[in-house]
Amino acid sequence: MNFDEAGVIAALARIFGSSQRGVEIGIGDDAAVVKTTDRTAITTDIAIEGTHFNTHWSSAFDIGRKVTAANLADVYAMGGSPKFLVAAVTLTGDESMEWIEDLAEGIAHEASSCGVYVVGGDLAKGPCKVVSITAIGQVDVAITRSGAQVGDSIYISSLPGWSAAGLAIIEKDLESDIALHAIAEFSAPTLDYSSAVQFSNGKATSMCDISDALVIQAEQIATASGVQLQFEKDLISAHPEFGTLSELAQSVGVDVWQWILAGGEDHVFLATGKELEGFCIGTVRAGAGVTGVEMKKAPDTWRHFQ
Amino acid sequence: MNFDEAGVIAALARIFGSSQRGVEIGIGDDAAVVKTTDRTAITTDIAIEGTHFNTHWSSAFDIGRKVTAANLADVYAMGGSPKFLVAAVTLTGDESMEWIEDLAEGIAHEASSCGVYVVGGDLAKGPCKVVSITAIGQVDVAITRSGAQVGDSIYISSLPGWSAAGLAIIEKDLESDIALHAIAEFSAPTLDYSSAVQFSNGKATSMCDISDALVIQAEQIATASGVQLQFEKDLISAHPEFGTLSELAQSVGVDVWQWILAGGEDHVFLATGKELEGFCIGTVRAGAGVTGVEMKKAPDTWRHFQ
Repeated sequence: MNFDEAGVIAALARIFGSSQRGVEIGIGDDAAVVKTTDRTAITTDIAIEGTHFNTHWSSAFDIGRKVTAANLADVYAMGGSPKFLVAAVTLTGDESMEWIEDLAEGIAHEASSCGVYVVGGDLAKGPCKVVSITAIGQVDVAITRSGAQVGDSIYISSLPGWSAAGLAIIEKDLESDIALHAIAEFSAPTLDYSSAVQFSNGKATSMCDISDALVIQAEQIATASGVQLQFEKDLISAHPEFGTLSELAQSVGVDVWQWILAGGEDHVFLATGKELEGFCIGTVRAGAGVTGVEMKKAPDTWRHFQ
Repeated sequence: MNFDEAGVIAALARIFGSSQRGVEIGIGDDAAVVKTTDRTAITTDIAIEGTHFNTHWSSAFDIGRKVTAANLADVYAMGGSPKFLVAAVTLTGDESMEWIEDLAEGIAHEASSCGVYVVGGDLAKGPCKVVSITAIGQVDVAITRSGAQVGDSIYISSLPGWSAAGLAIIEKDLESDIALHAIAEFSAPTLDYSSAVQFSNGKATSMCDISDALVIQAEQIATASGVQLQFEKDLISAHPEFGTLSELAQSVGVDVWQWILAGGEDHVFLATGKELEGFCIGTVRAGAGVTGVEMKKAPDTWRHFQ
């Protein structure tokens, strides 16, 4: 082991900060105590070495950012504002102090980009690295998956598929700017959280983030709302990034639609409503399921049971 | 793999229930949405196979109970009432459906013993089993580690050491009732949560649960409160369970004080105050640190940085 436990705790307390608005009791007691209103969103995401991240591919900073982003996105996707998070981490003991600090800084960086504070956590030794984060946030009006209405349009906040593209090419020697962008998105996606707020403000009738793949989550909205989501491939392929993503897919012999429809881990927001500020990809109709697109192969991930 | 993912999710939703008081949106969306008041406690505990549990020793039900108990105890130790929890779990894929259901039932059992609902979670495949739980609860008046006053008495809710005893003897062939009790306490401690409520109602000046070992957590109260905690070994050894625990220690050639003072993982509550309903083990004096007892060897665990 290259570090002592007291040193790790002290470093975490320093990185996560002690003066935090809305935090009555932060790191240093049995539990944190925070100010809340009458409706709180709570969500959790776990990432384990070998499945969700790999220290050869991703920096500790990116790993911290990615798991944090997954949690923050889930709170935004409910129409909420994330406020606080706790992080439970297992380490093998082989990590350098610098690696651990980078991990904590990645978590703190992504959290603070949304004004969210890290208020506590747990640290343990184990046979592999695990980062498990729980975020809580304030919700005034919850936007669920069940409110899509016939006649609504379907919107995405950005084009999904970049994370899947990054995963597909990470071990190839592609050094173009586009390839590096895809790898960066896989390592730690850049989330435009404000797009979820825009969907909420625009009175989206349903919303989710599509961390489990666009088609799967669209099917969840269709089922929960009792409607059919009709995608238009022409609309999706008119997205400004479609061309560059297609080129990348061609260069590695992959169908770009597989990345877009079944990719997963993008944390793009999918919403339904009228005249929302987003990229329109179809319409909500009477019926069931998702039409207009075909997913050739389901992604090999397990689903959130949130 | 002996099960399919959709089957696991369906089983979890069934075990964790769908009709829950105070839960506006439960399992099935991006995040749960729950009713809260203006002050919320949040705490997290992670348990990983090989460090915190072992499937040869513990049933899935006990593993679920144990991690849940650790979280609930932390909320009670702040003077709060736990209300909701989320569970993030990684599985290797070798588990039977029965094992997974037992794990979920252990979590649900311990939670429902405190009127707490499981409102969501995350499930992933990974190289080892991990159970990471976060609990949130309501706090009216927080009881921290920093309020101990000179002249207070020191109380424990029960005698610690049973979990350490269980760990020490689990691989020995002891079949006495006492040995089996110790092993059961190690596998999943029986927590008397009401004792924390009694400490709170009695206006405890400070409180914590001693999952990291009695002396370590007493030192934390001493430091946070700027006082000295003077333990009386005679008082501790007058505890009704001291004799049986001592016998067990002698039978395996261990110093019983090591189990009591440095054991850890007991989730006994430690509090200071006047005339509390608990077992008195000493007094709070001017000074620093913990006196009256000596811990020969620190426990080999990492600490919560909550």
